[in-house]
Amino acid sequence: MKTNRRDFVKMGTVAGMGIAGMAFTNSEAFGQKKDKTKDSVKHDPNIVRVGFIGLGGRGSGHVHDSITVGGIEVVAICDISQEAIDNVQKIIAKNGMKAAKAYTGSDHSYEEMVKNEELDAVIIATPWEWHVPMAVASMKAGVPYTGVEVSAANTLEECWDLVNVHEQTGNQVMILENVCYRRDVMAILNMVRTNQFGELIHCRCGYEHDLRGVKFDVETNNLKIGKEAHSEAQWRGLHAVKRNGDLYPTHGLGPIGVYLDINRGNRFLTISAMATKARGLSKFIDDHVAKDHPYHDINFNLGDIVTSMIKCANGETIIVTHDTNLPRPYSLGFRVQGTNGLWKGEGGGDWQDAGEQIYVEGKSKPHVWDKAEDWLKKYDHQYWREKGEKATGAGHGGMDFIMLNDFYDAVRNKKPVPLDAYDAAAWSAVSALSEMSVTRGGALVDFPDFTRGQWIKRHPGFGKDSQFPTDPERDFINTLF
Amino acid sequence: MKTNRRDFVKMGTVAGMGIAGMAFTNSEAFGQKKDKTKDSVKHDPNIVRVGFIGLGGRGSGHVHDSITVGGIEVVAICDISQEAIDNVQKIIAKNGMKAAKAYTGSDHSYEEMVKNEELDAVIIATPWEWHVPMAVASMKAGVPYTGVEVSAANTLEECWDLVNVHEQTGNQVMILENVCYRRDVMAILNMVRTNQFGELIHCRCGYEHDLRGVKFDVETNNLKIGKEAHSEAQWRGLHAVKRNGDLYPTHGLGPIGVYLDINRGNRFLTISAMATKARGLSKFIDDHVAKDHPYHDINFNLGDIVTSMIKCANGETIIVTHDTNLPRPYSLGFRVQGTNGLWKGEGGGDWQDAGEQIYVEGKSKPHVWDKAEDWLKKYDHQYWREKGEKATGAGHGGMDFIMLNDFYDAVRNKKPVPLDAYDAAAWSAVSALSEMSVTRGGALVDFPDFTRGQWIKRHPGFGKDSQFPTDPERDFINTLF
Repeated sequence: MKTNRRDFVKMGTVAGMGIAGMAFTNSEAFGQKKDKTKDSVKHDPNIVRVGFIGLGGRGSGHVHDSITVGGIEVVAICDISQEAIDNVQKIIAKNGMKAAKAYTGSDHSYEEMVKNEELDAVIIATPWEWHVPMAVASMKAGVPYTGVEVSAANTLEECWDLVNVHEQTGNQVMILENVCYRRDVMAILNMVRTNQFGELIHCRCGYEHDLRGVKFDVETNNLKIGKEAHSEAQWRGLHAVKRNGDLYPTHGLGPIGVYLDINRGNRFLTISAMATKARGLSKFIDDHVAKDHPYHDINFNLGDIVTSMIKCANGETIIVTHDTNLPRPYSLGFRVQGTNGLWKGEGGGDWQDAGEQIYVEGKSKPHVWDKAEDWLKKYDHQYWREKGEKATGAGHGGMDFIMLNDFYDAVRNKKPVPLDAYDAAAWSAVSALSEMSVTRGGALVDFPDFTRGQWIKRHPGFGKDSQFPTDPERDFINTLF
Repeated sequence: MKTNRRDFVKMGTVAGMGIAGMAFTNSEAFGQKKDKTKDSVKHDPNIVRVGFIGLGGRGSGHVHDSITVGGIEVVAICDISQEAIDNVQKIIAKNGMKAAKAYTGSDHSYEEMVKNEELDAVIIATPWEWHVPMAVASMKAGVPYTGVEVSAANTLEECWDLVNVHEQTGNQVMILENVCYRRDVMAILNMVRTNQFGELIHCRCGYEHDLRGVKFDVETNNLKIGKEAHSEAQWRGLHAVKRNGDLYPTHGLGPIGVYLDINRGNRFLTISAMATKARGLSKFIDDHVAKDHPYHDINFNLGDIVTSMIKCANGETIIVTHDTNLPRPYSLGFRVQGTNGLWKGEGGGDWQDAGEQIYVEGKSKPHVWDKAEDWLKKYDHQYWREKGEKATGAGHGGMDFIMLNDFYDAVRNKKPVPLDAYDAAAWSAVSALSEMSVTRGGALVDFPDFTRGQWIKRHPGFGKDSQFPTDPERDFINTLF
């Protein structure tokens, strides 16, 4: 068991080693309990032993979808709510699996879990401010693979924590950015890599999602937010009271970061961000509570719409939008534009959506959009071709299944995670950097280089599709490094 | 005649006088020929006497559409090309009108025209670099109304020239921004003013138009640009060789400026602009000429896509896109978003276009876009309700007709122009300011206040529709000034 354990630990990469590199840091120096395998029974090495921290809507969904993916055992679960634990035990039982060991009772019960249990992987789905402390604890305890929900980090220090602890321990952390696995997003990745759009020039993305009903519990003629509310309204809306920036950039930036090879031959250099006035949430309060309700005294710092412009090392620009306080249909506002054409993905991922349009010079009728569907079918990604049927019914139209399958594939085969600590740091950094820029009225702010200069020689690795290999012209530059 | 002439001159406004103000500067101090009416025959004061400078595709279209509007006489025309003059004389003759006096022979023939002729109005449709010198000459010569094509000005100094000469002479200049008169754009203006979208928060617009075939003459296996080319390729592409910024912002910013009451209770404060790498035009050359062609040595300074973020005094932000070097379907990329809903206008103005979508909370099905058409029909603007039938067949789907009708209405009724020197300056300034910001990597640049502080008390005036008066709540603030 301990040998097997060390195998897991040993293969953690540091950026400097490239995607095939090995790290030799002994993770046991970082405080994990050394005797925790004492009571273990013999373990099938093909079964991934998972612990789940955070069992709300998102976390319990991950338990369910992980079981659907298969080849895993839910060893331990952790939440401050006994109700959430009971709910997940039921999911486990319904699937004919043995009950997980439950950790609860304190905000810090997760520390006991990662120290006590012999885990191949931990999945974290908690409020934003807990993501990094938990991921750090998991890596330091010697868990070789930690998956952390988006946005991974809220501050620059937290971004560095993810990177530094990954490098110090040799253990890996994956940002669980499910939109990277959305079916249209992956088909577009195939189109990008096979050069349908030519050299990429400009991208757009965003989180354009009316979250007023998430930031508040909405009841008849009343609202609740913060400690007196439930679910995400307990904490998510509070960020809008205090912070002003792009609080949730990764659903858009994840896919765009992959398309643009960020941290793998390219990187984000600078950002300028502006916020509008804040009106949407106050109006929502006005529309729902009596005139003398104390909520009228809340001043929201978050501008209703925050837009960020990012410049990349290879000369591309990106516009990122955060739009969560106003009434509107959902969109991630994608655009991927190159010298040969572009994709506009403004729907919710539905291939028939009017907002899904593609134009490829020489193939589309001149100056006329193609509906995206035929293109997306043609370039449908291997992950979906092979697992799409099984994914159906899993969270968010199946992309959660495809994502977890990729995560567990890395765990089981001791591979580098497809979306790693550097991705988590670079994408999440937009939150903190946009807050800085907004405060200065849109002044430029520099991105840290979380790879410490290694981005120039790291190679793209996410979502390779054997049927659609990268165009040699596009890939040529990688052959020099 | 001279009395009539002075009436025209006298009513020119300066910003400080508000929309109903009068200027008493004697325009005759600014060099117009005082005896130029000597040879005039008796003139019907209801007929607007117009001179046209620039008779290419755009200018000859204006002659044609002006005749269609009616109530005008083409007194004089000016172009360096005799062919262009002959062509316009034919248009005039075909309409049974007497030939115009032609000015040609030198780049500066227009100076003779505005000095010699008794003109109520001049319309300028020449290469960008001639707009301001010609408009200034026209105002200084005492022409009470000058219409100048977009973008009105290329540099900040030119923006100030338009404003200062307008104020010094009391003569007016209108920026001929036809998109302000597009049928959907005017219907949206009615929706904005009647508060369908609530308080405006964020807008987008742009010029997303594949101009590669305009910047170059495209011939079989060959291209031409600059002095050896024809039409716009003679000059328009050259701006892309030397400049790097949003070269053509007003088709988008005109409508958005009107919606946001820019210069009339609001103003642009700051801008941050980023440019991508420049690839599109070089690739176009690669695709069209032999390997040893000297055009391969041209280095284009213009980034393929330039995006600008603008912050407004009242807390709104605007994203402006300039995208003219890459293959793509046409779009002006509109978005107008408020506390109650939004319009996305990403088509070319066709109401049935999939890119035309509207969402209004409480009226649209929750979280689902309405196709825009029903909304646009309901809020169809008075100008189009009354003149739409006659406009059909005029330039750009009729909006040129509606625009010229509004211009001549101001001339005939001695009213302030609906889009004035301050609008021309503020909108066009984005060209120069974006170039400054791009050069500094996206650093913030401040907008000049071309109204010299008067924007806080100027009132909106463009495109009032008697059937859709401004919502009193929206208009309240104006009643204080």
